Order: sequence, then structure tokens, then C-alpha cells
Amino acid sequence: MSLLVVGSVAFDALESPYGKVDRTIGGAATYFAVAASFFAPVNLVAIVGQDFTAEDRKIFKGRHIDIEGLECAEGKCFFWAGRYSENLNERVTLTTELNVFADFKPKLPEKYRSSKYVFLANIAPDLQRDVLKQVKGKPKLAALDTMNYWIERTPAELRETLKHVDILMINDSETRQLSNEHNLLRAAKHIFKMGPKTLVVKRGEYGAMLVDSKGVFCVPAFPLEEPHDPTGAGDSFAGGFMGYLAGAGNVNDATLRRAMVYGSVLGSFTVEKFGLDRLRTLKRSEIHARARHFAKLTQFKL
Amino acid sequence: MSLLVVGSVAFDALESPYGKVDRTIGGAATYFAVAASFFAPVNLVAIVGQDFTAEDRKIFKGRHIDIEGLECAEGKCFFWAGRYSENLNERVTLTTELNVFADFKPKLPEKYRSSKYVFLANIAPDLQRDVLKQVKGKPKLAALDTMNYWIERTPAELRETLKHVDILMINDSETRQLSNEHNLLRAAKHIFKMGPKTLVVKRGEYGAMLVDSKGVFCVPAFPLEEPHDPTGAGDSFAGGFMGYLAGAGNVNDATLRRAMVYGSVLGSFTVEKFGLDRLRTLKRSEIHARARHFAKLTQFKL
Repeated sequence: MSLLVVGSVAFDALESPYGKVDRTIGGAATYFAVAASFFAPVNLVAIVGQDFTAEDRKIFKGRHIDIEGLECAEGKCFFWAGRYSENLNERVTLTTELNVFADFKPKLPEKYRSSKYVFLANIAPDLQRDVLKQVKGKPKLAALDTMNYWIERTPAELRETLKHVDILMINDSETRQLSNEHNLLRAAKHIFKMGPKTLVVKRGEYGAMLVDSKGVFCVPAFPLEEPHDPTGAGDSFAGGFMGYLAGAGNVNDATLRRAMVYGSVLGSFTVEKFGLDRLRTLKRSEIHARARHFAKLTQFKL
Repeated sequence: MSLLVVGSVAFDALESPYGKVDRTIGGAATYFAVAASFFAPVNLVAIVGQDFTAEDRKIFKGRHIDIEGLECAEGKCFFWAGRYSENLNERVTLTTELNVFADFKPKLPEKYRSSKYVFLANIAPDLQRDVLKQVKGKPKLAALDTMNYWIERTPAELRETLKHVDILMINDSETRQLSNEHNLLRAAKHIFKMGPKTLVVKRGEYGAMLVDSKGVFCVPAFPLEEPHDPTGAGDSFAGGFMGYLAGAGNVNDATLRRAMVYGSVLGSFTVEKFGLDRLRTLKRSEIHARARHFAKLTQFKL
């Protein structure tokens, strides 16, 4: 089943101990769409500026990504510049230019309105809610990402939007900030009262954890000797996760577990190279081989 | 097969947001021995002072723990006082009194010398080596724990001792400090050159990771809503890990994976209450039930 994503398509400037790029395609919706398209057709809703060329657009070509919802506005693309620390665990934002993103009002093409799987990447909570309203009926699965900025600045809007989603997918510190609980199990219980019935906590080098009424499922991060650039890892995780579920067309304990694994697989590939470089050349066979490697990494017999 | 442990038997004063105890039995060798004794007979080598009463000694009674190697010297037991932060993630040491531990010269009773499984808990590296020398022949498996103090103060002694052990079992920050590598895979390669062929990294709330020539195995920490006191969690992990292997009498990929799970099981029980309180009442049936719970926590089918 097709999967709708709304979020940013952007240019990034990245510095890590492994190198530096001045301008490369980035944005949560870009990583998400490319990662998810290995599993299911993706409908993309985002905004770009006139500096987003036909050449740039090629990142979506030859994949199951529909870009009718990619609006092109006067002005420049969202631009983010960041620098990672020696061990890639910390980053500083050097520049954020919203540009065309400042006035983004997501508008769903008619054919997107019947999407059954919806991912609301990290944008203003009222825009996320507005996208959900444009979807006909209740989607089979709606998931949402957010960040400290919205938790702090627009808490009421975020609370309202959370009432309408099934899965909240955020990192440890956002989980703790939103719930005001350090312990992740207690945090999950708190968040369940806000609306989502499932919490997926992205924990960077420590992997990811899913909590729902059935219990907890943990998946480690894939051990890599030379991660190059963590940018987009969380969005690629979300893409692999939601893409797998949309492709399976079924949300249950077994598919959620596999979705966690495929999310981790996609996230792990993304960090191997700068920006989207690794996902550009990624093959389905490599995805399945790494998923089997995850089994080796975690499975035991009592 | 019987399992030899050398390390500290001590009194601790503990403070956490969940309570406070002024004096409770602690020490790495105590946690280790109690945890391991659920799986295999344990031979304990440690030193206590005259303040260690017959009542205190009961912690070892009714378990498969031989205390012929528990020396009683004039003076007082090793004493440690610590306070944990709100979320239990940080701790400050308030007091450390070495007392009888300052002149500890571990001496193995004759019957301990044929031990095939040996665990060298966190004490001075030259004492750890001295214990290994007292064991007849090469043990089937020797594992070692250490800490930043020895990595910084006695690096040459530690390097010499590491040549003679099979498994190094330390936490993330010690791994990084010892290897001078942030990345744990690269750190493991570095450490393999020092002697150990297996590295077990204890990662607290993130679980544990084993690295050897066959690859990597990860186990998460058991999610607990109300951990009370992390003291002894790492030593209980080591006890469950080594105890399981000694009980199995076989070290291979399958038993090492199960050992990681049983280590995590024991560590998770320890943090549920203060000091050794939870291990005191722990039943074998609870251990096996939680091990099955770990399977539920991590297993998936592709």
C-alpha cells in the first residue's frame, strides 16, 4: 500500500572527521522517501526552491516515489549546515536557513488523499495535523516525528496533533523531554495517554526500542567500524520502518518487529557514507543480507 | 565445573532516589559469587575484617559457594559509600576505605588450584596475575574486569596481565580509555592484540555487547520501570555470564550467547532492590522466566 510522507527536502552542508561537503541533498522527507521506496510506493509532499534543479530531482527518479506533491516555490531550498564531533556523537548546527520552508503549507494532490500509511516527518505540529486532515478517512497507520523545538515552543499544538497518530517515533532525549520522565517505560505510559499507542525510541549508536501494550522490543544499532556521517540516519530508520509496514500491508507484532529491523538496516547504511551517497547505490539484496546479519547479531537459543 | 573468583567483599553505604542504607554487604566478589552460584559451584578468594560477622557470612550459606578462600584479617572490611543521581545514571563516591583490602595478597586454598573457570574481578592487575599463576595449568576460561584507576595508574601491569586472559569484561568508557578508540569495533581489534580473544562491553541501561572473531552479539538491558540501585549490576552480570559458562562446561558461540543473556538477567534482578536484597531471595524459576522474557524482547523472524 502506498505511503505518504510530508517533511523537508533540503540542501545540507556537512562536516565530519571523515570529510566535508558544501552542498548535498538532504531533508527528512528525502531520506525517508528513498529508504521507504525499497519496500512500498511513496507519495512525497514537500517544498523546494528554484535552486532545486532537474539534476537534483534525479534522487527520486527510478524509484517508487511520486513527486506530484513536491511543490516548487520562488526562492531557495531549506538549507542546513552542521559539524559533527570527533566521534560523531555530537553535532553543532552552523546555519539554518528556512527559505521556502518558512511559508510551507502542505497540499495533498487528490490521488494522495487515499493513502493508508502516513508519516509526518519533523515539521510544525499544526502542519502535521493539517496533512492528516487532508487524508480521506482514518489512515491505517499514522506515525509522527518531532523535536525539542516543537516540544518547547508549541506544546499545545503538538499535544493536539498527537491525539491523531498511532506511532510516535522520536529519540531518547525527546522522549524524556516530552514525558518529563527519565525512565523510558514510564515515559511510554505517559505518552500513551497523549494518543499514540506505540512509541519507537531511536537511540543512535544504541539502536532502537519499541514499546506498546504487548511489551518491549529492542534492536541494536548495526556495529560499523567506520560510520562517516549520521545525518539522516533517524529519517532513514523511519523510512525503512514505515516502508516495510506499508509494503506488508499489515501491522501486528511480527511485522512491527521486522519493521524495527528494516528501519535499523536502512539507518545503518545511511551512516556509512556522506548524505544520501550510500542509499543512492543501495540494492535490495544488500538490505536483505544485512537484515539476516541483524538476526545473527541478536538471536540466541535458550 | 567449579568457578574461581577473586575480588572484594565489602560493606557499602548507598543512597539513591529510592532510599538509603548505611551499611550493607557489597563488593564485586560478593555479587559475582551469589549470581554465579545459581549455575555452578563457586570458589571465593577475598579478604574481610573482623567486623564481618557470622551473620554477614550467611549471604554465602546455602548456596554453592566455598569460602575456604575467604581470609579474615585484623582490621575492618573494605568500605565504600556512594550516592546516585536522580535518574541513577551518575554516581559520586563519598568514601572509600581500603582497610584490610590494602594488604590483600590473594592465596588460593589447594583445592581451588584446579579451577577451570576463573574470574578476576576488579583488583590490582598484579594481584590478578598472581592468582592466575596459582592455578594449576591453563584454565579453560579466564576473564578479567578492571577500571579506569588501573588503566591510568598501572598500565604496564595491566598489559602484562591481559596477555593471560581470554575475556575482558569492562564498560564502554573503560573500553574506550584502554584502547584509545571511540568506536567499539576498532577498540575490540585493539584489545585483541593485547591478549583477550573476546571483549564483553557492559553498557548499563543499553545492555551488553560481545565481540570476538566470529562477530558481534548484542543483548539489551531488561527494561525496568523502577530500578532502585545499580550497585553490583556489572558484577552480577559477570557472575551470571561466567556461572552459566562454568555450568555448561563448554565455551562456544551458542553458550557465549546464552551467557550474555543470563548475565543480563542477573544484572537486571540486582538493580530491582538495594544492594544484594533481590539476589538473596531470587529463585531459579525466576531466572529462567526472565531469560525467556529476554527472548521475547529481542527475537524476530524475517
